[in-house]
Amino acid sequence: MPAFSRLVRFLARNGKVYYGDAILPRGVTDIAQTKKARIITGDVFGKHEVTDQVADVRLLLAPLALEDVKTVRCLGLNYALHAKEVTHSFRQCLGSHFPSSRCYFASAVQYKPVTSLAGPTDPIPVHQIAQEELGLDYECELVIVIGKTCTDVSEADALNYVLGYAIGNDVSHRDWQIQRGGSQWSLGKGFDGWGPYGPGIVSSEVIKDPQTLKISTRLNGKTVQESNTADMIFDVKTIVSFLSKGHTLLPGDVIFTGTPSGVGMGRKPQLWMKDGDVVEVELEGVGVCTNKVEFSKGSTAKL
Amino acid sequence: MPAFSRLVRFLARNGKVYYGDAILPRGVTDIAQTKKARIITGDVFGKHEVTDQVADVRLLLAPLALEDVKTVRCLGLNYALHAKEVTHSFRQCLGSHFPSSRCYFASAVQYKPVTSLAGPTDPIPVHQIAQEELGLDYECELVIVIGKTCTDVSEADALNYVLGYAIGNDVSHRDWQIQRGGSQWSLGKGFDGWGPYGPGIVSSEVIKDPQTLKISTRLNGKTVQESNTADMIFDVKTIVSFLSKGHTLLPGDVIFTGTPSGVGMGRKPQLWMKDGDVVEVELEGVGVCTNKVEFSKGSTAKL
Repeated sequence: MPAFSRLVRFLARNGKVYYGDAILPRGVTDIAQTKKARIITGDVFGKHEVTDQVADVRLLLAPLALEDVKTVRCLGLNYALHAKEVTHSFRQCLGSHFPSSRCYFASAVQYKPVTSLAGPTDPIPVHQIAQEELGLDYECELVIVIGKTCTDVSEADALNYVLGYAIGNDVSHRDWQIQRGGSQWSLGKGFDGWGPYGPGIVSSEVIKDPQTLKISTRLNGKTVQESNTADMIFDVKTIVSFLSKGHTLLPGDVIFTGTPSGVGMGRKPQLWMKDGDVVEVELEGVGVCTNKVEFSKGSTAKL
Repeated sequence: MPAFSRLVRFLARNGKVYYGDAILPRGVTDIAQTKKARIITGDVFGKHEVTDQVADVRLLLAPLALEDVKTVRCLGLNYALHAKEVTHSFRQCLGSHFPSSRCYFASAVQYKPVTSLAGPTDPIPVHQIAQEELGLDYECELVIVIGKTCTDVSEADALNYVLGYAIGNDVSHRDWQIQRGGSQWSLGKGFDGWGPYGPGIVSSEVIKDPQTLKISTRLNGKTVQESNTADMIFDVKTIVSFLSKGHTLLPGDVIFTGTPSGVGMGRKPQLWMKDGDVVEVELEGVGVCTNKVEFSKGSTAKL
């Protein structure tokens, strides 16, 4: 059982990077407001200690160091209204067999590379090859972080293997995801920095029921997604149990659990993110990630 | 530049695990025949040394330790004859837009979790949920291991970031990949141990041209795939350059580059692997991985 309540990773005023347990003012639950944290020593997945040493937080970083993350999984279509709003777009590409009645876990599972993860205030860099077509979209998602190794875990036992929860943005480029990706969604979701998450990881000891949390997205201050994790088709215990069948989950595995309705692709007219946009994703009891879209100016060799 | 020619990871007779540089008898190029290796100290991706200390090899392991692997990418449909043999099956599921004329990199990119990687003689465990339907298939593939961090690398420069090459088996369950996976292939390719590779990694200093190598699969001794990496649609330098666009590749990234024709799904009648089958994948100048299919007897909670 982790000794911390709200795990943060941060650049301290002294210039060093630490894991810490966020100190929040009374009544504040948004980890993004963390100004001070108790430094954690040891292995956040194993033997560790929350020390009495308090550090000043200069900048919150991605809550896990890249070397502490193993596999990043993503679920698609895990909120009914979202599945409905995008089915037309997917059908155009994927044909009438999607979603199939024989698809046991309708929330199609894909992966993101570890390099797509980013911190709660990092810019979202948009490479030149993703600027050529419209389609840059947001997806607020409850993020599960696995804390202990498990295989074939039952639904009843699944939450015991969860370290905690964060809010993430599964940034997606619909043209790369659907048309250019050759049927597989990875190319449209895996660019560097396209998985900001955080602002920290709230322990599963603090959030005992992850299916009661408001989740939302604001684009340039306007609410564009607004739902509740109660509306997830597959809940956290089902997801962890299912994904562990024949697949060993490791400490540091990160799972994006799907987005509710309101994505840009599903709107009429469609709404795409552009250079300079500010996108905020928020999860009740966890906090907000605020990321600015930054179109890269660098040249790219022609494909 | 690595100091080794043929990187192996092995259990030594003294019970310890080492990285080593394989010592092969004159005229032998199959790393699986390695009986002795010079122990390597340090970081195989950074500062390291091939010492004079020779160890007896008891068992070759997956050539990279799990903690040294970052992201595992897989290409689909990278040999023309294979793309042709499976198009019918994919069309049934994915509709007429596959592959799309707007798909810039027809070799659809997906990922495997790091836990799917396994050693050159490890069994291929088949979980009970993958025994319920037919569809267990083999895919011999040239495997690229990235040696240095790169982003937006040119084709001309791409091979300078490759540590070396291995042979891998991108074990796939077609029912889970196509029907049950909700359009995304990951679930049918990511089971524990479904990515045996090795038997070691031949340095890109030794294999200067990776596009001239015979590649094949034998199932229970009978040749079922037989091709040459010259037939790859996208060659190694194109793959590395493309995948690095907007995506930082890291030391320890592993890339399965697609399989030639002859897979079980493309045969008439179709040919599926079963419990006890022995599958061998071979790459010229690298060696053979020999893996036995082992159906697990363990019970699994109903989905």
